[in-house]
Amino acid sequence: MPDLKYDVLGLGNAIVDVLARAEEDFLVKQGMHKGGMALIDEPRAEAIYDAMGPAVEISGGSAANTIVGVASFGARSAFIGKVKDDELGRAFAHDIRAAGVTFNTPPASDGPSTARCYVMVTPDGERTMNTFLGAAQDLHPSDVDPDAVAGAAITYLEGYLWDPPHAKDAFRKAAKIAHEAKRQVALTLSDAFCVDRYRAEFVELIRSGTVDLLFANERELLSLYQTADFDTAVRALRDDAKLAVVTRSEKGCAVVTKAGVETVPAQRVERLVDATGAGDLFAAGFMFGLARGRDHQTAARLGVLAATEVIQHIGARPAVSLKALAQQNGLQV
Amino acid sequence: MPDLKYDVLGLGNAIVDVLARAEEDFLVKQGMHKGGMALIDEPRAEAIYDAMGPAVEISGGSAANTIVGVASFGARSAFIGKVKDDELGRAFAHDIRAAGVTFNTPPASDGPSTARCYVMVTPDGERTMNTFLGAAQDLHPSDVDPDAVAGAAITYLEGYLWDPPHAKDAFRKAAKIAHEAKRQVALTLSDAFCVDRYRAEFVELIRSGTVDLLFANERELLSLYQTADFDTAVRALRDDAKLAVVTRSEKGCAVVTKAGVETVPAQRVERLVDATGAGDLFAAGFMFGLARGRDHQTAARLGVLAATEVIQHIGARPAVSLKALAQQNGLQV
Repeated sequence: MPDLKYDVLGLGNAIVDVLARAEEDFLVKQGMHKGGMALIDEPRAEAIYDAMGPAVEISGGSAANTIVGVASFGARSAFIGKVKDDELGRAFAHDIRAAGVTFNTPPASDGPSTARCYVMVTPDGERTMNTFLGAAQDLHPSDVDPDAVAGAAITYLEGYLWDPPHAKDAFRKAAKIAHEAKRQVALTLSDAFCVDRYRAEFVELIRSGTVDLLFANERELLSLYQTADFDTAVRALRDDAKLAVVTRSEKGCAVVTKAGVETVPAQRVERLVDATGAGDLFAAGFMFGLARGRDHQTAARLGVLAATEVIQHIGARPAVSLKALAQQNGLQV
Repeated sequence: MPDLKYDVLGLGNAIVDVLARAEEDFLVKQGMHKGGMALIDEPRAEAIYDAMGPAVEISGGSAANTIVGVASFGARSAFIGKVKDDELGRAFAHDIRAAGVTFNTPPASDGPSTARCYVMVTPDGERTMNTFLGAAQDLHPSDVDPDAVAGAAITYLEGYLWDPPHAKDAFRKAAKIAHEAKRQVALTLSDAFCVDRYRAEFVELIRSGTVDLLFANERELLSLYQTADFDTAVRALRDDAKLAVVTRSEKGCAVVTKAGVETVPAQRVERLVDATGAGDLFAAGFMFGLARGRDHQTAARLGVLAATEVIQHIGARPAVSLKALAQQNGLQV
């Protein structure tokens, strides 16, 4: 087995969030599905931007947020994703490197601009996302560095990688290298609509053992098994998955294995400001715990801790050191 | 007198803030003067950006922040400032227009990129700024629309306009048009180091009556009159200025006229998160009150209200409607 270089390596769409507060009726007028993620083309991106309020630009991308969270716990992490060599692409690269993440994917020098996600945050803290994939569509298998993947305890892949044309090949390449090096592969289902688009392929990834660890929220899990009943979905999940964690917002989370289902409660939230990144940061804490050899219960508590931090401020990346926060909460790892 | 089109029109450097948290020792290592604004060239900008932590891009610029604040009170406002036709320039234009401000200055199509201010926010909430002026250096008198100035109750100018080569000519042109139309001209001293650079010219602007209303914080005022004693500086100010407001952080503010000095207390702040924009937003509230015919005391209370809101979150523009906030605080205008 090659030397361990990273606790977690992530592969995902490299996106800059363009984040604005919006009222409920803005979503209705724009025909947006609250809480979801829609893929949009450039003309639609411009129309949304023209209509939306004053915004803030913050580096995002689901897997990238997770990897930044892992780094914030003090772990070694790396990210693979495609930006363009433009202002937002440079901001993305700066921000992820400044967070302590290794990021060496060469930027695209031509083609569409760096991916942007227009995020509307409603007064209840829920976020509604519209993604223009831009340069993220140019992620190819050749961008996957075999040494980096073989040197990572966990390779983390996002379901959103099924959207760009070649990224799923990069995903499969990374998963193959990881398993050949006796490493773990993790997948997040990303979004219930994403599951709708690629349900059969996601189920196959889980059943075939291409994925060792699955992250899903309740809606994504229900969509995966096309059921309205949580217990039914969990039973199906136990048949298919080696290890899965289902996050349930204020109901906490369920760790699902062949042996059974363990639940971990949520933390009390003072004020839900912006739900963006809750699932991403949960995955960060859980994988950090796992990579450091902690039990599922402790890993889930680290996930809850990170998710609780990120929803109490604007933006999907931690505003404080998660390492310090874990220590303050008696979760030394 | 031409028809009133705007309550306040602002002229200033059009800047995007690149905002990051930083520890005190980062400022020391980088040789930065805490709480101040330093002008930097592009290589220094890149060196600072490489060294600083993960950042957020938010539209800024002192006078632009003020004008957005005026709009947030529900007033009609306009801004004149120069960006480049690049990604950050488009973000600046989007954000200020989305805030309800008229912004028609044509962007530069070549030359340096849109101005950026690298803002380090230390754990005590203080901000330390480094500005690369970029395209803001191309603001010319021809960018001043005479009809807009003549149609504004108050034309608001920032001391920082003395830094770019031609902007002071734009400033003088705007002041002349405003006075010919029997309108008011306001100036902010911007920064104590800016006062150091242009002291004699600023004193002359005040003494000559080019400026009807002056905004300064305590440090800027002490720098203007090169004294360490507040009362001495205020006496000098009473001799020179028609109307001035001196902001003093937690000590509130002093409204200075020939008739005397009135003080208005500060509001209690739950948690000082980011002091960026405190002075800018004070000016917004005060000018809004003045433009709507309120007395100095009420105008100052509106200023305190707006400043208090902006320092309790990241970023230098209001996160809530200042109109609604004023109503909640019994300050209908």
